[in-house]
Amino acid sequence: MTHIIPAPRLVQFVKSAFMATGFTNEDAEITADLMTQADISGQDGHGIFRLPQYIKRLQEGGMNPKPVFKIISHRTATALIDGDNGIGHLVMRHAADIAIEKARTSGVAWVGARMSNHAGPASLYTRYILEKGMIGIYVAVGSANHMPPWGGTDMLLSTNPISVAIPSGINPPIILDMATTVAAYGKVKTLLQSGGTMPEGWMIDKNGNPLTDPAKSKDGFLLPIGGPKGYGLALIFGLLAGTLNGGAFGKDVIDFNADNTTVANTGQFIIALDIEAFMDTEQFKSQIDKIWAEMKSSAKLPGVSEIRLPGENLAKTIKDRAASGIKIPEPLFATLAQIADELSIERLT
Amino acid sequence: MTHIIPAPRLVQFVKSAFMATGFTNEDAEITADLMTQADISGQDGHGIFRLPQYIKRLQEGGMNPKPVFKIISHRTATALIDGDNGIGHLVMRHAADIAIEKARTSGVAWVGARMSNHAGPASLYTRYILEKGMIGIYVAVGSANHMPPWGGTDMLLSTNPISVAIPSGINPPIILDMATTVAAYGKVKTLLQSGGTMPEGWMIDKNGNPLTDPAKSKDGFLLPIGGPKGYGLALIFGLLAGTLNGGAFGKDVIDFNADNTTVANTGQFIIALDIEAFMDTEQFKSQIDKIWAEMKSSAKLPGVSEIRLPGENLAKTIKDRAASGIKIPEPLFATLAQIADELSIERLT
Repeated sequence: MTHIIPAPRLVQFVKSAFMATGFTNEDAEITADLMTQADISGQDGHGIFRLPQYIKRLQEGGMNPKPVFKIISHRTATALIDGDNGIGHLVMRHAADIAIEKARTSGVAWVGARMSNHAGPASLYTRYILEKGMIGIYVAVGSANHMPPWGGTDMLLSTNPISVAIPSGINPPIILDMATTVAAYGKVKTLLQSGGTMPEGWMIDKNGNPLTDPAKSKDGFLLPIGGPKGYGLALIFGLLAGTLNGGAFGKDVIDFNADNTTVANTGQFIIALDIEAFMDTEQFKSQIDKIWAEMKSSAKLPGVSEIRLPGENLAKTIKDRAASGIKIPEPLFATLAQIADELSIERLT
Repeated sequence: MTHIIPAPRLVQFVKSAFMATGFTNEDAEITADLMTQADISGQDGHGIFRLPQYIKRLQEGGMNPKPVFKIISHRTATALIDGDNGIGHLVMRHAADIAIEKARTSGVAWVGARMSNHAGPASLYTRYILEKGMIGIYVAVGSANHMPPWGGTDMLLSTNPISVAIPSGINPPIILDMATTVAAYGKVKTLLQSGGTMPEGWMIDKNGNPLTDPAKSKDGFLLPIGGPKGYGLALIFGLLAGTLNGGAFGKDVIDFNADNTTVANTGQFIIALDIEAFMDTEQFKSQIDKIWAEMKSSAKLPGVSEIRLPGENLAKTIKDRAASGIKIPEPLFATLAQIADELSIERLT
């Protein structure tokens, strides 16, 4: 059975849950809004699905419900933030605000964070920058290692995702949001919950054989896109989002799916790029529309019905779900009811 | 038969060739040095191999031997350069110099270029920034379209490569230099010259079937890494390196392998990131060494003898070739002799 919850009700529920675990009203609202946006945009592995885990982490002391952000260092176009072990959503929203402000004068700004946490889907933050009229780029160290270096079997790397958001004129914005692995681990988790099998190519086991049962995902590891190339991207992204910021990377990354008490020290960075530093924004948007049309009108391979642009499906899903609501499968719905009772907040119905 | 030429002799030869086609002494030297670095570092598809094409392009009017760079716009941390249709090596070396200077105060700088040309391997420019003590990031629109959008057959995208260079302490720097396609087109070209076949997965034909004969490469197209993900990366990189800078992208990209007269209007961008804006450089380098050691000491998959880091092979090749010289296969050697006679410069021997 699947429950359908209107987005505003979901925001309210998530906000109440965070307030009951010690968030300020404003922080609870920002986090609830961002988490619900993840569900509205179809990134099911990163929205309400994560609430039980976040609450547990807050309750068991692994995450700080009342973080006070510090600027560790800054220049005209850079800043490094200490997130005080707050939830990643708040840290990265704050980082994005700083980046946008700096980029308005500098043209570009790069803001890194340490002592952050899981922040949901990468595109939440690039879309936020997009709303302010700029191009956004975001890279994160994933919150659990699921991938070895190329040729290895020690899980030293995460899915380290990247998102880039670029505005268009008459079309939806172009939004890339991708893990450097063939599949994100969130997809494995949702598949486990929905009861499917993984296609070959997502994971292999320690002998290099394909692994397709999501229940056995702990016996294997995710594969990088393009073999050594995806390994290289995951490594470089980890060094820039983690190591450079004084955040965890490599062996220091805890498995936040299994450990609710150890400080994660997650690292992320965000870039705001002011289009006006290069070109008139409206002229740029019409150029993007021209490229959009070129791609859409390409001749197709046999069996392909449509060419898509990154962000096109996301825009469709947002439109659908904002109107029809968010589907929550029964097992998650039951867990949320338990959480509601435990926190003495109103259940979803 | 293969000829072995010491690197300094190759620099001298390439410099003479460019001077004979109208370069200033300084421009010829910079370009010759960068091109030879490509060969020394094992990026054979992008060094002396490209000289005949560059010379033809200069002779037939497709490239300007005496470019005068203009700054179209600039902010504290950004600049947009018009390369005046000069060779990409000169444009991007200039862009890197501006980025480094700006980043020293701003912390980060993003410099874009339009009216540039093919610039050789991406890592030439990130390695240059690395020598100045910073992290370098470079992205380019490739100089010919070899890839359709995912699911399509119209070649609207190039291999749009990225390079990132990050310093280490006791180990070689970590240098990623990768096309967003499974194989770079330069690899197809060198394979054609050396007489090999391509592995499946590099290219497909217009019906979606594997294509393995490099002589038939014009009948098919390159495949992106990770399917739609690599398509997304190639698209986004093209929009940021091309469109945003007013450079060519999509249908406007000419095939510089087939057309020596039309202005290419190649777009590229480079980022210099000052480590000191985030962390003490020596502390950072020792952190990179720690990560290096972690990756190298990972347990291995059956049949794997060594885990490698991006840039490790490059460092080995540089050491070998700087000492032993650069191998030039006979067909290329003969072409270079013809060029020498035509330009009245001394042949390689």
